[in-house]
Amino acid sequence: MKLTVTALIKSKPENVEELKHALEILVDGTRQEPGCISYDLHQSTTEPSTFVMLEEWKDSAALKAHQSMPHYLAFGTIAGALLLNSPDVLVTTKIK
Amino acid sequence: MKLTVTALIKSKPENVEELKHALEILVDGTRQEPGCISYDLHQSTTEPSTFVMLEEWKDSAALKAHQSMPHYLAFGTIAGALLLNSPDVLVTTKIK
Repeated sequence: MKLTVTALIKSKPENVEELKHALEILVDGTRQEPGCISYDLHQSTTEPSTFVMLEEWKDSAALKAHQSMPHYLAFGTIAGALLLNSPDVLVTTKIK
Repeated sequence: MKLTVTALIKSKPENVEELKHALEILVDGTRQEPGCISYDLHQSTTEPSTFVMLEEWKDSAALKAHQSMPHYLAFGTIAGALLLNSPDVLVTTKIK
């Protein structure tokens, strides 16, 4: 079953550009994964420190595999220092 | 400039099916709008009372027009009774 993930990611005010750069690198790596259908980075029009990653995955195995990938783990090692709080991650399916 | 909107919508526990039905009607109406590129309803895989609407709009005028549409206003009249709290709506642009 295809999954759609919405991740709300908030930067500390002083780290917006650094986080943006780290997220761009994460996008490049993630799009190479065979189970990734799409992985698109968005930024709020009113609050630049707020990012939204919209992700489509082939199935839950693909999403699970993502979380062991080097680019995902590398992002994890620096995320704590850059983020205002833990990302709010919603795993969903499209129902209409 | 194209806009992507992410709306997090939480139902009161007793209203999940009623809210889902109202959101499906909202999708049908919204997809008829000329400025709507996509408008897709998602439901959490772990918390069925949590919905995510992922929306793509041609521009800010299209999004503004949406908020005056009969189907949008009709949803608004019943939403208060069905929702756990106000939707968390993020207006973003795709940056990568």
